[in-house]
Amino acid sequence: MRYAIIGTGAVGGFYGGKLAHAGLDVHFLLHSDYEYVRQHGLQVDSCDGSFHIASPNVYNSVSDMPKADVVIVALKTTRNHLLAQLLPPLLHKETLVLLIQNGIGPEPELQKQFPDLYQAAGLAFICSAKTEPGRVNHQCYGSINIGNYSCKSAEVFNQMMTDFIGAGIKTAEVEYHEARWKKAVWNMPFNGMTVALNTQTDQLLANPHTRKLIHRQMLEVIGAAQALGVKNLDSSFADRMIENTLKMTPYSPSMKLDFDFHRPMEIDYLYTRAIAEAHSVGYSMPCLEMLEAQLRFIEGKY
Amino acid sequence: MRYAIIGTGAVGGFYGGKLAHAGLDVHFLLHSDYEYVRQHGLQVDSCDGSFHIASPNVYNSVSDMPKADVVIVALKTTRNHLLAQLLPPLLHKETLVLLIQNGIGPEPELQKQFPDLYQAAGLAFICSAKTEPGRVNHQCYGSINIGNYSCKSAEVFNQMMTDFIGAGIKTAEVEYHEARWKKAVWNMPFNGMTVALNTQTDQLLANPHTRKLIHRQMLEVIGAAQALGVKNLDSSFADRMIENTLKMTPYSPSMKLDFDFHRPMEIDYLYTRAIAEAHSVGYSMPCLEMLEAQLRFIEGKY
Repeated sequence: MRYAIIGTGAVGGFYGGKLAHAGLDVHFLLHSDYEYVRQHGLQVDSCDGSFHIASPNVYNSVSDMPKADVVIVALKTTRNHLLAQLLPPLLHKETLVLLIQNGIGPEPELQKQFPDLYQAAGLAFICSAKTEPGRVNHQCYGSINIGNYSCKSAEVFNQMMTDFIGAGIKTAEVEYHEARWKKAVWNMPFNGMTVALNTQTDQLLANPHTRKLIHRQMLEVIGAAQALGVKNLDSSFADRMIENTLKMTPYSPSMKLDFDFHRPMEIDYLYTRAIAEAHSVGYSMPCLEMLEAQLRFIEGKY
Repeated sequence: MRYAIIGTGAVGGFYGGKLAHAGLDVHFLLHSDYEYVRQHGLQVDSCDGSFHIASPNVYNSVSDMPKADVVIVALKTTRNHLLAQLLPPLLHKETLVLLIQNGIGPEPELQKQFPDLYQAAGLAFICSAKTEPGRVNHQCYGSINIGNYSCKSAEVFNQMMTDFIGAGIKTAEVEYHEARWKKAVWNMPFNGMTVALNTQTDQLLANPHTRKLIHRQMLEVIGAAQALGVKNLDSSFADRMIENTLKMTPYSPSMKLDFDFHRPMEIDYLYTRAIAEAHSVGYSMPCLEMLEAQLRFIEGKY
């Protein structure tokens, strides 16, 4: 199995690095870090044991890359418009594209452009950051839930799961919709609220008013998911997410980091599309719709 | 008729000043500006014609003040706990207390402490600010709607209305609940949203996302008011408020000014009590409840 990594950052650099470190055939697309990584390799500083890939297969153009059996897309969804150009050179008939991305709806959107594409969703539970060129800092967690979206080859899908597990990545298969919506239960409240109130997870939960609000927003996501037919998800999941977050160190979700570093925020896939999906079955999420509007305002202002 | 003014600031200084300028018997309670106004008088710079009261009746303690027929309370509601001490020396059996204040519920709260008190609500539509000691800057508008809450003397109430009109104040009598809730339709969205997003009215309406959100929040207030039995209020009022605000110059509502100048915000009367009132008849205002939580967070943080 040959792997291609599109987006060699905090997430793609970590999972791609783990696969390469395990001896798999991995090919990395890089942009700003290309020259540095070509010369110095890829460094992963990890709470689970650091490692260095001295001579990774690196490219600064997809036209130079070989076709892959699995393409891991770890771009921010704000750059998904690039996939129409980036993917074709990497695809053969049975290539599986794994989108390790936040939000609701990136697979159906991509499927519109590539109707026969095999796709899966990767929901990463990881704290990592790209701290400097060619260097990923993996602080904690690191597991991934993978949901099959449109992959018709059980062989390719299962081999990918086996490769992930073999590379020391805690990997589980989950139902696609359940996986995306469960992640949204945490993502939708915390990403936007840390931006809107310029704060971190711990502060939001320390204040009884915002803690109650976060819980209410989680129930809105759960209600939307249930209205959309997602199984194995009830209000107890909100309590569990709050409890888990209380145990975490103060945390800035990815949207907060994007905002702080003046990068575009993933409002579209994290909010707008999730809200539209819920509306499609007549379900409204008033507090998260308000949060979306506030984020759109903030986006336009800064 | 003798008038006492508690809170000689942007609002109390303006209306009390107008009454005194018209030759009525007005007695002003002052705090930080007492010495200055005693020596230099009260200056009202007004778009409708400026004037100066050279020797107003000023006091720095209610114990020195005469009993009044009308007590105008123009304190911020954040200081209403002071009324238990401030009012008694000023009251005779038929004294009418006019609360020119924002929010929902200051009259019932005060009635609990003074069960036999005659009260009315004054809803001021005015842009004014106290720019320096003893100086009120009245930029525009200035009308007041007055709703009888518990005044059993038509004579006192009507004489007050006549005095206001005679002093050149555009004054109308309105139904109490209708008046307070109609004001809340504008106040609840704009006060909190300008604080939460650190902006002004024009910017909130220039962005299509927040404009839609403001409209939705207005409909929440209208829905709550209707659930509470308020008459003459339907969704067209929201459209009218948006249209009127678009015609205004960029504006910072009083809560935004309080926030900017590190004064306590009127979250309790503008949000918490209005929300509780709506809940009492089973009505929920999700977006405004979210805004309240955000304001409570901001209040705790700064």
